[in-house]
Amino acid sequence: MTKSLDANWFTEVYDSHASAFSLKVTEKLLDVRSPYQHLEVYATETYGNLMVLDGCVMLTDRDNFLYHEMMAHPALFTHSDPKRVVIIGGGDCGTLREVLKHPGVEHVTQIDIDEEVTKAAKRFFPALTESNDDSRAELLFADGVKWVDEAEETSIDVMIIDSTDPVGPAEGLFKTDFLKRCHRILKEGGVIVQQSESPLYHSGSIIRDLRQGMQEAGFSSVATLPFPQPVYPSGWWSATLAGKECDVTRFREADASASDLAFDYYTADAHRGALVLPPFMRRLLD
Amino acid sequence: MTKSLDANWFTEVYDSHASAFSLKVTEKLLDVRSPYQHLEVYATETYGNLMVLDGCVMLTDRDNFLYHEMMAHPALFTHSDPKRVVIIGGGDCGTLREVLKHPGVEHVTQIDIDEEVTKAAKRFFPALTESNDDSRAELLFADGVKWVDEAEETSIDVMIIDSTDPVGPAEGLFKTDFLKRCHRILKEGGVIVQQSESPLYHSGSIIRDLRQGMQEAGFSSVATLPFPQPVYPSGWWSATLAGKECDVTRFREADASASDLAFDYYTADAHRGALVLPPFMRRLLD
Repeated sequence: MTKSLDANWFTEVYDSHASAFSLKVTEKLLDVRSPYQHLEVYATETYGNLMVLDGCVMLTDRDNFLYHEMMAHPALFTHSDPKRVVIIGGGDCGTLREVLKHPGVEHVTQIDIDEEVTKAAKRFFPALTESNDDSRAELLFADGVKWVDEAEETSIDVMIIDSTDPVGPAEGLFKTDFLKRCHRILKEGGVIVQQSESPLYHSGSIIRDLRQGMQEAGFSSVATLPFPQPVYPSGWWSATLAGKECDVTRFREADASASDLAFDYYTADAHRGALVLPPFMRRLLD
Repeated sequence: MTKSLDANWFTEVYDSHASAFSLKVTEKLLDVRSPYQHLEVYATETYGNLMVLDGCVMLTDRDNFLYHEMMAHPALFTHSDPKRVVIIGGGDCGTLREVLKHPGVEHVTQIDIDEEVTKAAKRFFPALTESNDDSRAELLFADGVKWVDEAEETSIDVMIIDSTDPVGPAEGLFKTDFLKRCHRILKEGGVIVQQSESPLYHSGSIIRDLRQGMQEAGFSSVATLPFPQPVYPSGWWSATLAGKECDVTRFREADASASDLAFDYYTADAHRGALVLPPFMRRLLD
């Protein structure tokens, strides 16, 4: 019935949506069991290197620009003047690199619980870690939730929750309780952004719940931005932003348009277009 | 190395990009070899019914709205007053249904070479064929290229080339020669739109060549609009428009915004956003 995929393929099965995505691999480059997760890196035939955590595709050389740009730039062009940024998760350092492209950013703290991810990124995805030595970057390997609890009240401009799926270790990062703690450390006018799964698969579940959690946590506005992401379930992904006394349905369009930063996907037009959700999503979110 | 997919899965392998997409199927509903192609229909676990032509996924119940809306509405909201529309291919009738939503459209001719596709659509995708009895619709089962050659000069407002991939039977539909023939039958102000494959996989090849072919065929403007399409290679797809003395980089935004037509994906904002290509695509197309 089907063309079978042999051992030369890495396949991620999305059980709850009975679909799967596969990449042909040429070599396994790394297989590490850290205290937190099972980390694999493969060389693929056409996607460059592939990082896998607990069997889930995290990123490839070829298409990670979509995710990393959309996790960083919409939030940074929404905040009026982002200076202090925190990334929870994001151990591959791709989001960090994007954040550091903004010259106005004065300090970025990245807190990932698993140093093995960053070690693997340095070795196998050196482009993503090329800004790690920037004097504005601080890399911590610790529990992000604990870090948030110990951080000073109203001290942060932008928080980026660059986590794995909301099952297992990252589950708590999608809960109202954690969002309340984030709300506490954001300044007035602060922005939080969280990866929020697939518009096709999760609009009526994870995305809706996250938006509701953000509102319950005290955020005054919420916006979900869809974007393409070929290696993630359904090939379509989203980032959800929320503002602390800040309207995240608007952004600094003139600044984004005039920006001469090097982007592969992000444009002011893409940002504006993503802010208006497809009707099917609106119906599921209401 | 990989979780293997057994005979309960339908897999399409994209050889040239060493990637694959799979859906779990519960039953094979149809297996027909027409004079033109091998047509299969499966019931899937979560995507509704699935149509496959020569091993390539054509559509599923769950996500065909993305493709069909983007093949119809951008072109129809670009033309100033579309009355006569031609669809080459499109035998599943999903694009036809979208076109007929526009009350100003007076006549739509759909020419697909393979009647088996429409028969299968009627049986297994009845929602797509629900407008087939509209008095404005004319369904022909014939060679689209021949039909174009025999059509009256400057008689058509909008042409939609809703074809399979540019290999095998549909290859000619992507060539400059065919585009010239289409140009001949379009009125001044006419618009043509063609499905144009994946922004990630084909920007530097099929999309670039098609845009060049359109220009060589005499069209005065060209625009490629990306959109998500989970079941197609890379999960990201595109439609390329061209205008005969018509600027396809603009559209009737006010009409599209005010429209009360029932859309699941298309909005004026999505159209406007799609018109501005991601920087990586612009670089590959230049």
